[in-house]
Amino acid sequence: MITILSGGTGTPKLIQGIKNIHEPEDLNIIVNTVENDYFSGVYVAADIDTVLYTLSDIINDETWYGIKNDTFITHEKLADLNCPELLRIGDLDRAFKIQKTILMKKHTLSEAVDIQRKKMGIKSKVLAMSDEHSKIVVQTNIGELEFHDFLIKHQTKPDVISVDYTKINPAPNIIDILEKSDMVIIGPSNPITSILPIITLDGVEKALQKTYVVAVSPIIGNAPVSGPAGKFMAAMGYEVSPLGVASIYKKFLNKFVIDELDKKFKENIEKIISEVAITNTNMKSIEDEENLAKVILGK
Amino acid sequence: MITILSGGTGTPKLIQGIKNIHEPEDLNIIVNTVENDYFSGVYVAADIDTVLYTLSDIINDETWYGIKNDTFITHEKLADLNCPELLRIGDLDRAFKIQKTILMKKHTLSEAVDIQRKKMGIKSKVLAMSDEHSKIVVQTNIGELEFHDFLIKHQTKPDVISVDYTKINPAPNIIDILEKSDMVIIGPSNPITSILPIITLDGVEKALQKTYVVAVSPIIGNAPVSGPAGKFMAAMGYEVSPLGVASIYKKFLNKFVIDELDKKFKENIEKIISEVAITNTNMKSIEDEENLAKVILGK
Repeated sequence: MITILSGGTGTPKLIQGIKNIHEPEDLNIIVNTVENDYFSGVYVAADIDTVLYTLSDIINDETWYGIKNDTFITHEKLADLNCPELLRIGDLDRAFKIQKTILMKKHTLSEAVDIQRKKMGIKSKVLAMSDEHSKIVVQTNIGELEFHDFLIKHQTKPDVISVDYTKINPAPNIIDILEKSDMVIIGPSNPITSILPIITLDGVEKALQKTYVVAVSPIIGNAPVSGPAGKFMAAMGYEVSPLGVASIYKKFLNKFVIDELDKKFKENIEKIISEVAITNTNMKSIEDEENLAKVILGK
Repeated sequence: MITILSGGTGTPKLIQGIKNIHEPEDLNIIVNTVENDYFSGVYVAADIDTVLYTLSDIINDETWYGIKNDTFITHEKLADLNCPELLRIGDLDRAFKIQKTILMKKHTLSEAVDIQRKKMGIKSKVLAMSDEHSKIVVQTNIGELEFHDFLIKHQTKPDVISVDYTKINPAPNIIDILEKSDMVIIGPSNPITSILPIITLDGVEKALQKTYVVAVSPIIGNAPVSGPAGKFMAAMGYEVSPLGVASIYKKFLNKFVIDELDKKFKENIEKIISEVAITNTNMKSIEDEENLAKVILGK
């Protein structure tokens, strides 16, 4: 059994590759939830939705957000009405978000997501890292910002001083699934805001130490493939490089996959991680995704 | 200055006629709010929205609910997802409802509606009867039902024993506007669930007694033109006829407009209402609406 730890964008790309070459029933995805919040009256679990849409082949795989060929009638009318939505929610996408919101009146987030993934015909398990609400705030040179405000309204431009999220408990089944996994894959998502929130849940690090863990670097050279990972890493005192990422995961990581452009880091990374694999990690096509998946799974 | 008391369907039809022959700046509409509630995460003020859409010429005037030529992408997807919405909310309609929901985080309902009507270019004032939340429940032979469940899920089929709504306070400006009006028009809406909630607000009946009040019967013969008004009237002990409606309004009504088919009631109604006008009240076209408006306004 394989379990993947995921945020948005980077890891879903990898999941798109893995799901094509591995039995879906044997796959679990544990997804970051700290960015979840209510927008326009609906609960938005952006990373979970991206994973669900990826596994059911309806993801918009140009933006890695929302559903392909979706319309934006409600969203655009709201902009007309001087009431713009911070998140670009499509009309079909909104239905899934309303469904989750309604389900969550009687169910936990974990249960709601499980009902959704079954309805979508997804055979892999999609697991919210936690059923508790967590607030993530970014301390910046222009003051404290809500995560989505930093990300979208301020387009990640302010200088980051630190990032803080509420301490929450893992969802009921997370630790058990990690302990039963033959391999845990940490996808190339933002280590600070997507992966660390999962890893720092009570019991997760201990479970990871007992299993075989492979990670893919979300940093190529000195820059993240996408998003503000670099800013967050620097603010938290890590070098913005594959070596910096390796040092975050070193306590439990068995194998680290870095990009061909980063051969120069191999020697230093091998001082803290026993196995380093080099391949193309910059996924620009389904073929790239599948090739990276094969390197990770040893296929 | 003219003020209209409105529910859904019947009175908006009349408003469509009145707005074509009277100065919009001189017109106020006080709208029933007791049916308002949250659906799919958004605040739904169905009667207010129908009035707003009517005044801005975007109403779907076949169903008298929602926006003409609207799409239902989100609504239909929710049905696919085994999560059907009780109310049929279109994609454009949903944007207005989300806008109101967002505005209500910082504003009262009255203020939110005023911002909306200005943004829509509506020159008439649209006034929520109250800024407080009221719950309306229907006691039936199959138990207590929420109003929308009775109306939509049970399609008004159960026998009605009684209808109850929470006592709430009028919105700040309602009484003042009624007192300053030269004429108050009670539209042909459900007397029990749409008009009585407005009339029974503290101070409204007293204000109506001091001004000239005209009402249009929502009952023709022994049946309502639309909706479950008959069931509610019977349950509350009123005769289901124009005479029954007149008896509800008799304390303050100066003129009552009944349908040509109901000439037989004229003599008995004149025993309790000083002036009775007879015309076609069954509005099936804009011409019907304008003709009825002319009879009411004496134009």
